[in-house]
Amino acid sequence: MDRIAIIGLGLIGGSIGLALKAAKLQNVEVVGHDSSRQALGEAKRRGAVDRAEGALRDALKDADLVVLATPVMALRDVMSEAAPYLTEGALVTDTGSTKACVMEWARELLPSHVSFVGGHPMAGKETAGMQAAEATLFRNAVYPLCPSPAADPDTVKVAVWLVESVLGARPFFVDPHEHDGLVAGVSHLPIILSAALVSCTTQSPSWRELSKLAATGYRDLTRLSAGDPTMSRDICLSNRESLSRWIDACIAELQEYRRLIQEESPALGERFANAHDARARWMLDFEGKDKPKAMPDLPGAGERISSMFLGEWVTRRSKQMVEIQEKRAEPKK
Amino acid sequence: MDRIAIIGLGLIGGSIGLALKAAKLQNVEVVGHDSSRQALGEAKRRGAVDRAEGALRDALKDADLVVLATPVMALRDVMSEAAPYLTEGALVTDTGSTKACVMEWARELLPSHVSFVGGHPMAGKETAGMQAAEATLFRNAVYPLCPSPAADPDTVKVAVWLVESVLGARPFFVDPHEHDGLVAGVSHLPIILSAALVSCTTQSPSWRELSKLAATGYRDLTRLSAGDPTMSRDICLSNRESLSRWIDACIAELQEYRRLIQEESPALGERFANAHDARARWMLDFEGKDKPKAMPDLPGAGERISSMFLGEWVTRRSKQMVEIQEKRAEPKK
Repeated sequence: MDRIAIIGLGLIGGSIGLALKAAKLQNVEVVGHDSSRQALGEAKRRGAVDRAEGALRDALKDADLVVLATPVMALRDVMSEAAPYLTEGALVTDTGSTKACVMEWARELLPSHVSFVGGHPMAGKETAGMQAAEATLFRNAVYPLCPSPAADPDTVKVAVWLVESVLGARPFFVDPHEHDGLVAGVSHLPIILSAALVSCTTQSPSWRELSKLAATGYRDLTRLSAGDPTMSRDICLSNRESLSRWIDACIAELQEYRRLIQEESPALGERFANAHDARARWMLDFEGKDKPKAMPDLPGAGERISSMFLGEWVTRRSKQMVEIQEKRAEPKK
Repeated sequence: MDRIAIIGLGLIGGSIGLALKAAKLQNVEVVGHDSSRQALGEAKRRGAVDRAEGALRDALKDADLVVLATPVMALRDVMSEAAPYLTEGALVTDTGSTKACVMEWARELLPSHVSFVGGHPMAGKETAGMQAAEATLFRNAVYPLCPSPAADPDTVKVAVWLVESVLGARPFFVDPHEHDGLVAGVSHLPIILSAALVSCTTQSPSWRELSKLAATGYRDLTRLSAGDPTMSRDICLSNRESLSRWIDACIAELQEYRRLIQEESPALGERFANAHDARARWMLDFEGKDKPKAMPDLPGAGERISSMFLGEWVTRRSKQMVEIQEKRAEPKK
């Protein structure tokens, strides 16, 4: 029997549990742990886990695959606490929104007899918690993966299997530093913009009147501010430098729009037109991806996770990533 | 027979036409004008107008109610061109996104024998043009109205009838300067934020990689950049001062978030939490409004638009607005 442990049963961990159960894997036990008894109860009730454990140690016992699905700033403590109880040869992965600091914590805290592959499911919704979890939450989502340089290539295959075959997402191998710079721009900056819009309007003395005129445009632009505030804070704190650079870039852009407006410049219309066209091109591509795709075949009954064969390309691509990271780690001459 | 003229058959003008036709008014002819032959043909084909006129003069002939539904920066020229052909006693209204400059143009250019009531349907969608028009576009939307100080109170009642009974929207009497300050914050600033996010990400040298990781958060925050670029430009140019102040307020807010992130301040989590709560309170209110409401009764067959009785409150509220504007117009002592 294979055993998969999910540490943290919020929206993400709970949804992974539901997806694992929906995959009807044979000879696999899904064990869940959370510090909240309510989350544990809910996960059991909804069938996201076979077994709910209140003690981290019990959840990790003999687990071949460990998914750390806590908020990103809690990962350091969780890794430290989990380290002594990890099974030899296990794959450990996480779901944190930033990767450079997580990879560093894993290198520092996890035992050398396990393999760490950082992960970041780029999906979510406004409502947090186990009660909002869905088996299909990650369907078609991009899922960056960052294998640690020391990760056993076979465990990387297991990570790809989880992402692609169980969750229906798209594995995307990327260097952790590059990952953080990229998500700062397209994922974390939008959160800040959304929250800043809410902050500056709702703190205005005229908010009472403003609120009456705010309509669907305001609703959409402020949607991301409805996400879990702790998660938003953690994302910012774990990605300070990249995010600060993107905030600066966006402020410069806003100042440019302001200047063009003040000067009634003909370049203003052009700038809106360019943004319009660039967004349309992106949407075409994004919506193409969003089309429901057939789920890849799941591994047959009785096949061991650790002996799974997922094709040459995974080995090749993950090897490339490992080489990039080794190069980065070499002392500069 | 009453006659209603719609000048400009884009998304807004076309939707007003469809709503008028859906109301099945008896003894009312809807005449449409647009400089585009394609828009005229489409309006006729979809039944948004009874008659499509290629010449402005012909469309305005004997019209009791004239709806100017062109982009806001075109309104000045349209008013100037329409002035000689307006029927005595007619109500003229517009659908522009800003009101102070529109009210000023109306005062300057329209003959004193017509009444002007500025209007701003706060609804729209990403797709522009007559082909995207819908009879229900304005259902439940807030619809600011700014009667000019000289407007005949009876024509104000006609404006309320159009907004409330035909379009199913919510009339909201407001001073034009106050209107512009308010919509700059909750409607025009979001457009700028959306466009600035697209501009700063798509112009980045790493856009190729960024575009792969951009997901639903990016999609939602950039939605407003998909609106008609000419309209976005016009909105900015017709509301320069208010919008510039709001851009400044938002930049200050972004700088504050950046500072809290850099300092790893505990106030960062609080700020996200406050934004989260404020947005949740607003949504509760907004979604309450959004619930489908019963359409008010339409005036009976044969009832003349100009003799309609819509209740004491309209007269009273529009009178108050006129008084506020007269006070504003008085020379300072």
